[in-house]
Amino acid sequence: MAGSIYGSLFRVTTWGESHGKGVGVVVDGCPAGLELSEADIQKYLDRRKPGQSEFSTPRREDDRVEILSGVFEGRTTGTPISMVVFNKTQRSRDYSEIAGYYRPGHADFTFDEKYGFRDYRGGGRSSGRETIGRVAAGAIAAKLLRSIGVELLTYTRSIGGIEIDYSRFDREQINKNMLYMPDASAAERAGEYVTELRKKGDSAGGVAECIIAGLPAGIGETVFDKLDAELAKGIMSIGAVKGVEIGDGMAAARAAGSENNDGFEMRNGKPVKITNHSGGTLGGMSDGSLLVVRAAFKPTPSISKEQRTVSKSGEDITVSIKGRHDPIIVPRAVVVVEAMAALTVADLMLRNMVSRLDRIVDFYE
Amino acid sequence: MAGSIYGSLFRVTTWGESHGKGVGVVVDGCPAGLELSEADIQKYLDRRKPGQSEFSTPRREDDRVEILSGVFEGRTTGTPISMVVFNKTQRSRDYSEIAGYYRPGHADFTFDEKYGFRDYRGGGRSSGRETIGRVAAGAIAAKLLRSIGVELLTYTRSIGGIEIDYSRFDREQINKNMLYMPDASAAERAGEYVTELRKKGDSAGGVAECIIAGLPAGIGETVFDKLDAELAKGIMSIGAVKGVEIGDGMAAARAAGSENNDGFEMRNGKPVKITNHSGGTLGGMSDGSLLVVRAAFKPTPSISKEQRTVSKSGEDITVSIKGRHDPIIVPRAVVVVEAMAALTVADLMLRNMVSRLDRIVDFYE
Amino acid sequence: MAGSIYGSLFRVTTWGESHGKGVGVVVDGCPAGLELSEADIQKYLDRRKPGQSEFSTPRREDDRVEILSGVFEGRTTGTPISMVVFNKTQRSRDYSEIAGYYRPGHADFTFDEKYGFRDYRGGGRSSGRETIGRVAAGAIAAKLLRSIGVELLTYTRSIGGIEIDYSRFDREQINKNMLYMPDASAAERAGEYVTELRKKGDSAGGVAECIIAGLPAGIGETVFDKLDAELAKGIMSIGAVKGVEIGDGMAAARAAGSENNDGFEMRNGKPVKITNHSGGTLGGMSDGSLLVVRAAFKPTPSISKEQRTVSKSGEDITVSIKGRHDPIIVPRAVVVVEAMAALTVADLMLRNMVSRLDRIVDFYE
Amino acid sequence: MAGSIYGSLFRVTTWGESHGKGVGVVVDGCPAGLELSEADIQKYLDRRKPGQSEFSTPRREDDRVEILSGVFEGRTTGTPISMVVFNKTQRSRDYSEIAGYYRPGHADFTFDEKYGFRDYRGGGRSSGRETIGRVAAGAIAAKLLRSIGVELLTYTRSIGGIEIDYSRFDREQINKNMLYMPDASAAERAGEYVTELRKKGDSAGGVAECIIAGLPAGIGETVFDKLDAELAKGIMSIGAVKGVEIGDGMAAARAAGSENNDGFEMRNGKPVKITNHSGGTLGGMSDGSLLVVRAAFKPTPSISKEQRTVSKSGEDITVSIKGRHDPIIVPRAVVVVEAMAALTVADLMLRNMVSRLDRIVDFYE
Repeated sequence: MAGSIYGSLFRVTTWGESHGKGVGVVVDGCPAGLELSEADIQKYLDRRKPGQSEFSTPRREDDRVEILSGVFEGRTTGTPISMVVFNKTQRSRDYSEIAGYYRPGHADFTFDEKYGFRDYRGGGRSSGRETIGRVAAGAIAAKLLRSIGVELLTYTRSIGGIEIDYSRFDREQINKNMLYMPDASAAERAGEYVTELRKKGDSAGGVAECIIAGLPAGIGETVFDKLDAELAKGIMSIGAVKGVEIGDGMAAARAAGSENNDGFEMRNGKPVKITNHSGGTLGGMSDGSLLVVRAAFKPTPSISKEQRTVSKSGEDITVSIKGRHDPIIVPRAVVVVEAMAALTVADLMLRNMVSRLDRIVDFYE
Repeated sequence: MAGSIYGSLFRVTTWGESHGKGVGVVVDGCPAGLELSEADIQKYLDRRKPGQSEFSTPRREDDRVEILSGVFEGRTTGTPISMVVFNKTQRSRDYSEIAGYYRPGHADFTFDEKYGFRDYRGGGRSSGRETIGRVAAGAIAAKLLRSIGVELLTYTRSIGGIEIDYSRFDREQINKNMLYMPDASAAERAGEYVTELRKKGDSAGGVAECIIAGLPAGIGETVFDKLDAELAKGIMSIGAVKGVEIGDGMAAARAAGSENNDGFEMRNGKPVKITNHSGGTLGGMSDGSLLVVRAAFKPTPSISKEQRTVSKSGEDITVSIKGRHDPIIVPRAVVVVEAMAALTVADLMLRNMVSRLDRIVDFYE
Repeated sequence: MAGSIYGSLFRVTTWGESHGKGVGVVVDGCPAGLELSEADIQKYLDRRKPGQSEFSTPRREDDRVEILSGVFEGRTTGTPISMVVFNKTQRSRDYSEIAGYYRPGHADFTFDEKYGFRDYRGGGRSSGRETIGRVAAGAIAAKLLRSIGVELLTYTRSIGGIEIDYSRFDREQINKNMLYMPDASAAERAGEYVTELRKKGDSAGGVAECIIAGLPAGIGETVFDKLDAELAKGIMSIGAVKGVEIGDGMAAARAAGSENNDGFEMRNGKPVKITNHSGGTLGGMSDGSLLVVRAAFKPTPSISKEQRTVSKSGEDITVSIKGRHDPIIVPRAVVVVEAMAALTVADLMLRNMVSRLDRIVDFYE
Repeated sequence: MAGSIYGSLFRVTTWGESHGKGVGVVVDGCPAGLELSEADIQKYLDRRKPGQSEFSTPRREDDRVEILSGVFEGRTTGTPISMVVFNKTQRSRDYSEIAGYYRPGHADFTFDEKYGFRDYRGGGRSSGRETIGRVAAGAIAAKLLRSIGVELLTYTRSIGGIEIDYSRFDREQINKNMLYMPDASAAERAGEYVTELRKKGDSAGGVAECIIAGLPAGIGETVFDKLDAELAKGIMSIGAVKGVEIGDGMAAARAAGSENNDGFEMRNGKPVKITNHSGGTLGGMSDGSLLVVRAAFKPTPSISKEQRTVSKSGEDITVSIKGRHDPIIVPRAVVVVEAMAALTVADLMLRNMVSRLDRIVDFYE
């Protein structure tokens, strides 16, 4: 339970370091009978690939996924699905210098404190490459969800102080600009903002937003394992995330009850919420509305601007982090947010199947 | 795994409905040898007691905790600690009306969808009384943490748009005003804001903040079970919480890397962060700084202002929720936030003990 | 995770010491809609009640169960079901002597080694009263199983060397003799054997057997969480159990493959096993035959015959355990075996519901 | 939670099918700082290699393990250790026939019932190759245990009715005869027994025994997660195991209390058990004696003798299983038993570290 396992019934175990032999994941608990190929996974992995724009690192990583088990004749068998991406670029010399000091905003210091030493090459286990396992597993969860009518849409909501304008929301735009923003105008201004910071050897942060449609009401467990609580854990577990919001999020604290409550009305013979300040949950269970979750990402900690830090031998020094780093993490992290949301929701949808005796009796009849 | 169990090594199971026979909790995994009495628990429970001010419900609940097991001759034995608070006021008639419709902002609708029916009396399992188990268990976790040098301080940071001014931060104030704000001036203005809303039959939200001191570096597991991820789950699992932040939180998304990164310097021969934008975590592990977590609470959903909703029989209706309800949840929830933080941190401190072989060898020598 | 929690989806947490305020259990994960009353639980608890015959302790314990939560209008609500049996007889003086030495065959020594001290009154947490929580929870699991067509039958298979003769198997006999043997003749001889030992201040062991009918094929998870593996854990976790067998058990090791394999044949259009040496499992999953599990219980360790042991202060001494003790545990443990089997099978039947995509699609349509 | 994950703090996830791309395991929770190389793992894997004698299948499998992550500069880093053995021999044609019927004693039928279809090549997930992941992980657990003074010894105790004579017990013999028996004479007779069965197209079963030395008292959690209970699960989860015994095991049921109880005496100032009928546990915790656990294996189900079964299309047929099969599983399974025992004990030793407050205070000082 050192922390690399996620989920209850749909359970994933990720492994791998930035400069080890590879990174991967084992999915235990994917139901049998899902059509699955490496192409399904690759499509997701390609969304987090670097080197696609000036806003991401120009490193060339050709992350090809291989499925090693759990799929037979094109369908999942119910047994563990093991996937691996072998690391190609292992230029350890690039990173030898950072072995000797603690990079600000990175996990170098805390790794040494916890484990006594660390694989310092490229950030080791806390590198962004760690998310490859999440995304590969998330691709399966998302496909499973689609089979039962649930769709996810994830994009960049804001970069620095530049937020999208929902009146200009254009789903097609998301994949047209390299910042994955659904608003071309905001994307343009955000691009300028990032470019400016990058020129100064600095970096930017931003907010990713994930919308989940098609969720039936009642998903999520009461008390501790609420839908929003599990999402908060999953999303906050992504490196660099510092805040998680559901629906109106932090702003709900500033509203009055009469503004924040979502009334109900009958529509097509069913109770439906009139508004969606709650972001799709009530009492920790999905309420039939769109599920809305947001993640605030801090700016990329690797910057070439000079920073104060200390060496492992205990000297005060200043450093300037060289190397090919993204000036903004958010665009590449969008698919990671979607993966974590998919893993969380898929797991809770499976858990929900045992909540009512009448349905269990039907199942076993 | 229906969701009422929390934690890995320090594991709590809560139970109970608002109008059932009682509410309680079982703590499995509290180490043997901790001095513990009912007074330790009661002190925490009293902090969430209603009827203490005009800002909380005038209901009289005399929540007396009883320890039923796991303590012998004044110390924990290592076996499960069962605690119960029997419900005194069970006036079911108060609530009979709400059985017939779905209160906006409550879990009535989602409970019915998930389970087919619900114990509608006083909110049943999703009543605020559910938190009694959390707080009772949290009191033990907090005492355990104190034994190893970790202290928690929790308070109201803002109500509506009224935020405390940190330059006026006065720890003593927290227990002097009924809103648990560490700034007398903000508390006064917040009080006026809430009073005004209450008069209109409306309610307010706010933000609670928890500061944890004394945590050694390295607490938290890498990847999924990060310190911040587990805190996010624990805090978001509290009813009415819509956002969770660590350190600069959502604001980190608007900062530049050079502003957000915390440099290190040597102090007393140890690396120490110069600033604390990260709120005490790096790579999901405690970094030796103060741990800072915030929770945004939505306004109390029970308001007497008229709202639109639907009846169980499928009619569009309007309702005005009567009864004795808090116009603001935050002050009573402050101790719940502290309890969840204590449970989370205590669990991760226990989990951390097995991270290094040299320490395990020492332990078993 | 100190060990008092059992199960994955149908999850129980037991608590309580022999001479504390009470013993109890919380069931988290019982599906909503099961009709349940205290009488359903009491019926099971009465089967483990002492004082019913000369073969059990003449102590008078009136174990009345109370349901404190999770049931509304006669049906389970899907929320945790908390049950308690308050201890009536708390004559601590009876046990004060044993605080000072380690009883052979008991957990006194190991408790002190693990936790540094122990609640020595009546065996504390490792008393037979600990099983009350198991049986109360097992009663619910058994009722849930009956709702989906699964029935359990448990009885004493042997006492000392006296085994039942299956050709005389009479289900009605089980509740007619105080040893719960389905063979009147064996019961008579076993009674004489136990009486003789009891007169000498000695005690007897035996084997309990549980048969489970109506289980569909495919229950149990592959690899580690096999049906037989989970049963082995559940049954071996009962105090005094030293061996667990499935089907032919230890004897399978002495058979040839051609004797031990169960062939298949078509019956009513379905594949059915011709014999049942496997005891109802293949590859860790139920195979449609009767599930057969056995538990070997050691003799009651509390005997009045003189034994060698040591005092806490480190002296070699001899002791003769006084007090009212069962000369044989098996008859009272029969219901505990049934409870653990019911808890295990119910949990795995819930877990099985997510194994196939087509069924999940049906569920959510 | 489909069943391929084992352990709580030292947690392993296995994956892989007999004729897929490979089999492997991820170990999450191995403490940092353990010296580890592929040679440590290979040594264990070689013990389960087929083709070493006339008693095992003449298939040539060159199972070379690769460590893909979690080890840096020769030591474990605390992050997941991923290991893989790629499958070399994938002659699917050998197995095409068995796709059409259910082999007696195999999981073919139950796999189809649970998942709707199966990877039938070489037994798929329920092949003996599944144990490669267990053994690779067990090798790490065993090395961890040795670091803290715990040693395991495992051997064949009996084959068919031929049992070793403990008065002739010779540790050196275990690796000298191909049946891994510590008694040369028994090994010889057992060899003849197996040869005879093999000639008839039949197979044999047997019992493996594992002895664990050096375990401090107090390991194991009370109530459900007892040392013996967890061992029972781990051992019973090995395919073909039908019975598990601790200490005297099933025979304890036939003893009198005065025979079965182990008295204590002072030795070198410490309480020590005079005998060891209990097999090293009291109340589910290690008692300072040798831990003794036994597993009964059924005969290899794949036999060439004609057997009755049914085809997938529903016809009664007879089959004779061809191919290269071990006439006895036990010798190759000895290391699997040791692996499961090591995994179980290592996990409980880590869990035990949080049982006492005084030790936790010491740890964090």
